Amino acid sequence: MEFKINSKIFEKILSNVIPVIPSKTTNPLLQNFLFDIKDGQLTILATDLEIFLKTQVNIVSEKNYKFYVPAKLLFETVRAIPDMIISLSLEPNNQLKLTTDRGVYNLSYFETSETIELPEIPFDKEINLSSDELKRAIEKTSFAVGDEDMRPAMNGILLDFTDDGLRFVSTDGHRLVKFVNKTFQSDLREQYIIPKKAISILSKFLSDGDITVNLTKTYAQFKLPNLEFITRLIGEKYPNYNSVIPFENDNILKIKKQDIQSSIKRMLVFASDDIKQVKLNIKENEFNISIHNIDTSSSGQETIDCQYNGEPMEIGFNVFYLNDIVSHLDSEEIIFKLNSPSKACLIEPGEVSEKEEILMLLMPVRLNY
Amino acid sequence: MEFKINSKIFEKILSNVIPVIPSKTTNPLLQNFLFDIKDGQLTILATDLEIFLKTQVNIVSEKNYKFYVPAKLLFETVRAIPDMIISLSLEPNNQLKLTTDRGVYNLSYFETSETIELPEIPFDKEINLSSDELKRAIEKTSFAVGDEDMRPAMNGILLDFTDDGLRFVSTDGHRLVKFVNKTFQSDLREQYIIPKKAISILSKFLSDGDITVNLTKTYAQFKLPNLEFITRLIGEKYPNYNSVIPFENDNILKIKKQDIQSSIKRMLVFASDDIKQVKLNIKENEFNISIHNIDTSSSGQETIDCQYNGEPMEIGFNVFYLNDIVSHLDSEEIIFKLNSPSKACLIEPGEVSEKEEILMLLMPVRLNY
Repeated sequence: MEFKINSKIFEKILSNVIPVIPSKTTNPLLQNFLFDIKDGQLTILATDLEIFLKTQVNIVSEKNYKFYVPAKLLFETVRAIPDMIISLSLEPNNQLKLTTDRGVYNLSYFETSETIELPEIPFDKEINLSSDELKRAIEKTSFAVGDEDMRPAMNGILLDFTDDGLRFVSTDGHRLVKFVNKTFQSDLREQYIIPKKAISILSKFLSDGDITVNLTKTYAQFKLPNLEFITRLIGEKYPNYNSVIPFENDNILKIKKQDIQSSIKRMLVFASDDIKQVKLNIKENEFNISIHNIDTSSSGQETIDCQYNGEPMEIGFNVFYLNDIVSHLDSEEIIFKLNSPSKACLIEPGEVSEKEEILMLLMPVRLNY
Repeated sequence: MEFKINSKIFEKILSNVIPVIPSKTTNPLLQNFLFDIKDGQLTILATDLEIFLKTQVNIVSEKNYKFYVPAKLLFETVRAIPDMIISLSLEPNNQLKLTTDRGVYNLSYFETSETIELPEIPFDKEINLSSDELKRAIEKTSFAVGDEDMRPAMNGILLDFTDDGLRFVSTDGHRLVKFVNKTFQSDLREQYIIPKKAISILSKFLSDGDITVNLTKTYAQFKLPNLEFITRLIGEKYPNYNSVIPFENDNILKIKKQDIQSSIKRMLVFASDDIKQVKLNIKENEFNISIHNIDTSSSGQETIDCQYNGEPMEIGFNVFYLNDIVSHLDSEEIIFKLNSPSKACLIEPGEVSEKEEILMLLMPVRLNY
């Protein structure tokens, strides 16, 4: 076998599949790429048995071959080679030889009857999404995905196909994000939960153009030109998130994002693994934020201009969660919709495109001072 | 007590002294800055008892005070405050209060009879150096400083005042760097060893202008305007480095730095914690570099153009050390002066300023294949 490929093109292809390779695994086979050369096409497959990522490139090769190569070592070798042609060939003693104008690099390859295959799945639903829009939805929601074995349904992003569009929902029980793509239309009325690791890999190769998504109850497939990504879905029922989003939060606070974000940054200086509570003291047109660290006998307190038309209120939040939410809103103004110091608070952008809806929810913490 | 200072000026001052604060210490006092306000001057002192760093700034304060504040927390608080005036005041309950237009931050301060003082040292030698030149000497030598408790003399950079200028020498037993500042003149004929941590802190605040260095056998003091840095010296005899620098290395190899550095980068892909040996096979006008990793059954091999007028030679080096040396030479061409596969190799820049001399020495490793 011998074929040639440009090093930078090869690097780009491998960089798409390398994130799937698990860093730790009890099955050493999974730390390899499967190279499948067939009828002038090289297919590279990487999997951790939950996620399958397959990419294809046309090459000139007369025969068909199928073998495994160490993923990280191949990727690092190719990445270190400057922009030039690489010839790849299979040599005796199970050596995959890479040859360039500068040198020769040998990696061990192997063949095995134990194979990793892309599962054959009878997908029954197909939708099309813009890569940009999918990427934006992931960016807005992924930070709030849960991470607890006890509540597996929350360890992914919910795709909820509804009358008002495609909703992306994430929650860890303390905070919740609902992002609605209102322009998306489909007859589907189903829910699918995409696991955290799949989301993270997906967002790496989304750039522009459309992406085709195929779905069953247990698998989702994302297809781009020359790239096919399959992930197992989380087979649990997602919590009824609508029931926790309050309607009666009539105390409306409007505040400049830049002001509150900059104040939170200074409150974080006084926070620690044990001390996370920040107190908001909100009065008419005055927003006071403070933190008190009893372990280091230190404290911070700032007052910011705001617009507020509700009852004066003292309410506590986890400062790390508050920071996450404020950082993920990209409007000039942020709106807090409050009910009482013990009820969920809604946080929304001041301005929002007609095409989407963004709602974040944060549970308060009980004030201890 | 109350005084005002601009946040960005305060941040700059604190950033000079914070590197001295030890991250782990059995003496909690050392994690604090000593603030000494006296006659309109604020002196901030940080020490780990080996290194003392003192910086001064004029302030308007009527009374004199001396107290300790938590170094990291103060630095982080000040760094998070945008460009504005901060008022500092001492309040009841041992609170140091920082007030700005935006907010109020309280840190605990304390006074103690246990004090950290700058040692009073009868310095008997004074020299002047340009900060630039000192910084360059440190950059060229510090990477080869040793790190073994068994050979404390090597755990610092030697300043050797000789007839041909001021020499900076570092070695860990495997490699050695000699950097000579040939324009430096002084009657001193002494040797001083500056410890690794002091070198690292020193290089952070060196910028431009002259620096005054005062010396005794046990301490060195570096003085810049408003900044005084004292370090204990390593009180050991430095190895006789001249005796290990060979004179009979007549096999001269000239090679482009860019070529060899780029090849080494790819050899590093195949190296590991256990496999560090790279083999150089040098013939007339042909330089071959290779590595063989028996653990992963992989290898790399490249051939580069060179000029070589000596005996054909196969010689092995630690690829990490070779990479360090090549990276720290900034000439277009690099010269290797070889003797035999078991003797020290000299590595020098192809071109060197008249004002300095740079010599690097690398011990070969025995070839095992």
